[in-house]
Amino acid sequence: MTTIEKVLTRIDADLENSLSRLFDLLKIKSISTDPQYAPDCRLAAEWLAKELTSIGIDATVRSTSGHPMVVGHRKSGKSGPHVLFYGHYDVQPVDPLDLWDADPFEPKIVTREDGTKVIVARGSADDKGQLMTFVEAARAFIAETGDLPLDVSVLFEGEEESGSPSLHPFLNANKDELSCDLALVCDTCMWDADTPAISVMLRGLVGEQITIRAADRDLHSGFYGGAARNPNHILANILAGLHDETGKVTLDGFYDGVIELPDTVTKLWDELGFEVAKFLGGVDLEIAAGEAGRSALEQVWSRPTAEVNGMWGGYIGTGFKTVIPSEAYAKVSFRLVGDQDPDKIRDAFRAYVHSKLPADCSVEFLPHGGSPALRLDFDSPALAKGQKALTDEWGKTAALIGCGGSIPIVGDFKSMLDMDSMLIGFGVEDDAIHSPNEKYNLKSFHKGIRSWARVLDELSQD
Amino acid sequence: MTTIEKVLTRIDADLENSLSRLFDLLKIKSISTDPQYAPDCRLAAEWLAKELTSIGIDATVRSTSGHPMVVGHRKSGKSGPHVLFYGHYDVQPVDPLDLWDADPFEPKIVTREDGTKVIVARGSADDKGQLMTFVEAARAFIAETGDLPLDVSVLFEGEEESGSPSLHPFLNANKDELSCDLALVCDTCMWDADTPAISVMLRGLVGEQITIRAADRDLHSGFYGGAARNPNHILANILAGLHDETGKVTLDGFYDGVIELPDTVTKLWDELGFEVAKFLGGVDLEIAAGEAGRSALEQVWSRPTAEVNGMWGGYIGTGFKTVIPSEAYAKVSFRLVGDQDPDKIRDAFRAYVHSKLPADCSVEFLPHGGSPALRLDFDSPALAKGQKALTDEWGKTAALIGCGGSIPIVGDFKSMLDMDSMLIGFGVEDDAIHSPNEKYNLKSFHKGIRSWARVLDELSQD
Repeated sequence: MTTIEKVLTRIDADLENSLSRLFDLLKIKSISTDPQYAPDCRLAAEWLAKELTSIGIDATVRSTSGHPMVVGHRKSGKSGPHVLFYGHYDVQPVDPLDLWDADPFEPKIVTREDGTKVIVARGSADDKGQLMTFVEAARAFIAETGDLPLDVSVLFEGEEESGSPSLHPFLNANKDELSCDLALVCDTCMWDADTPAISVMLRGLVGEQITIRAADRDLHSGFYGGAARNPNHILANILAGLHDETGKVTLDGFYDGVIELPDTVTKLWDELGFEVAKFLGGVDLEIAAGEAGRSALEQVWSRPTAEVNGMWGGYIGTGFKTVIPSEAYAKVSFRLVGDQDPDKIRDAFRAYVHSKLPADCSVEFLPHGGSPALRLDFDSPALAKGQKALTDEWGKTAALIGCGGSIPIVGDFKSMLDMDSMLIGFGVEDDAIHSPNEKYNLKSFHKGIRSWARVLDELSQD
Repeated sequence: MTTIEKVLTRIDADLENSLSRLFDLLKIKSISTDPQYAPDCRLAAEWLAKELTSIGIDATVRSTSGHPMVVGHRKSGKSGPHVLFYGHYDVQPVDPLDLWDADPFEPKIVTREDGTKVIVARGSADDKGQLMTFVEAARAFIAETGDLPLDVSVLFEGEEESGSPSLHPFLNANKDELSCDLALVCDTCMWDADTPAISVMLRGLVGEQITIRAADRDLHSGFYGGAARNPNHILANILAGLHDETGKVTLDGFYDGVIELPDTVTKLWDELGFEVAKFLGGVDLEIAAGEAGRSALEQVWSRPTAEVNGMWGGYIGTGFKTVIPSEAYAKVSFRLVGDQDPDKIRDAFRAYVHSKLPADCSVEFLPHGGSPALRLDFDSPALAKGQKALTDEWGKTAALIGCGGSIPIVGDFKSMLDMDSMLIGFGVEDDAIHSPNEKYNLKSFHKGIRSWARVLDELSQD
């Protein structure tokens, strides 16, 4: 038996314990966007630091002005690249809670009608289940061989779902400690439940919350209606004007830096056999609603977007209140691709909002996030090794794909630490991340652990 | 001393007690739009019935399928017209609560910088303070003279702020009991704090709540963004399209039945010396935002409107959630004038929404209210008597004005009981009804009581 075979055998034998540890982590309500859960975020960080240390990776909880980081190191002295593994322990809010079939923080294994076993809990797929695949792979490697095959550092973040406000200062203050040869990031998806993937394109994100203010108080719509500005109307007009009739975003200069895919990549994507009817039909939709003339895969992987993630104004309770509110609000985000500049997009949005604002009204902006898109070099040697490891584990060629979601840290690793990232994750399309009844396939968790063991092994080869 | 002089003297002497009784009523949280306050609504009804009975108007609480009505009668056997006095004891919700300077249900007298004394509480002006002006006038009349100068009936409603769902069945079931010669309705404003008014035009109201549904679950805007429908975008598009660039409402046939004012009325209104800068400046606005080419007075009195009273969709909590929601909502109301047909307006709105809806999305409508506009005959004898009584009390000619708000019952009195209404109220422009820190001028309350005594006296004259 080779070393990696022994490690894989140990992983299989220890699966029940691995699950039990994951459940302990999933029970912690580490919702980073809501200040009331700050103590839970710290608890999750402490749990992870203790866990890492117990398996031989010296780890500490590192305070920030927001939620803490967890940093760990284990030097093997081996000749291969020094890798930094990244994941995030924070999770999305759980509302609307009444759409969950069970408590989001009481994880359970559910067997679906098709026999698939899934782990149901908030954070199971995004990202606690994913980060624990690496922790468990490292545990098995050290337990079986007495060491890791490479120098390994670990960085777990607690603000990924809330715009990572502490990330820049933290990376800046710890550049030497965190700069490695390669980052391994586990927060992405496979191509499908049986086909592993490495994400080579990752969209960036710019978010803005806007507050439109008109009258200095809420008004009676009978008394003032017709003469007084209604900020709901102003806001609706702003939001409706973000897209033209072909689905393109109307902001000035929005498409500056957007790159058309080379033919080689479009050919690879064509061969993936993506079924738009299945993708959208899975959530009870039919029509790809984005830019005209673009495939759905382009719309979610290689094209930029503008989305209204939240909007509200006036009376939103039970019954009716004939009010003209004094304020209306929206949370708007833009997914960026290619070389789109987050600052320029933010400026263009603010200029657009001002251009739509009547003279006697005002607007306030609250920025959120701001990360450029990322592309990984197709010729990277690490990419070839990662692809081989995944192909060996899953018995299918690992796909090189795009990913519509944003992982700001990957851009920061590049810009601040000059470090490339290899994005390997085991999520699947119907994981319902950010939604009620989020789940992670048990197969993803199990073979995810095995995959990381293989990746570490491959990367340590000459 | 004439009879009316004696009654007025008694009113002045009893003012402190009148205020104390009003405060008792204001302390009851009779918010009709929110089901949790149903017991408070009943409490308010019981308080009123007891109060009326104690002064000699036999009154009972009458259950409905919603909040109860209060009905009272006192037959004097006099030859004048039998009047029905109407008011409502329910109030608007109090949110946003943090904008109130004090508890909305702990009424207090506040002396403003200019020396004006005001009664601050939810419902002080709309409509508890107003309805108590009549109760106190009746109390003084009976106490001083042993009787009322006319046959008087009283109807207090508890659902005015929530679309009056029980009104039609109640009027239908009690037609004989409630049909009088004239309704006296106290839920409107004066021209200004020193100039009384009778409202001769009253806008109608149609409300609709709409729910736009797209995907069958909330989606991650990274994973699906660009390809999946966002109901926030669909809703913004619908709401933004309700008005054209000149401020006109775009619904098919919306202006059918809208009547241009006769020159005599526009002339009267011109003479009122309405200052748009003062009207809008009072709430920190400058520009009359409604239909181009119409005065602000027309915009709020004689022109129909469409207003988005509430809208919401997606994540509206603290922080950011990059979600594409499955549903988005709006509460939209239309103020009607002239002979606009509420049913046709509702149908036109629904057809418009359907016309804007993508093929793979759906909409649900929840109707609210539905009352036509009202106009009172300028030649009515009661109008002349009412005008004289108010002019005598306030020392200024009572204005004949329009009122932008809707009082559905006035239309129902006309259509169901064939009864005209005379609308006399003592609210003023800055009462902040439906808003935080609602108030009622102490002068309005005191001289309002005196006004009703005079109106009853005038109406009893041949």
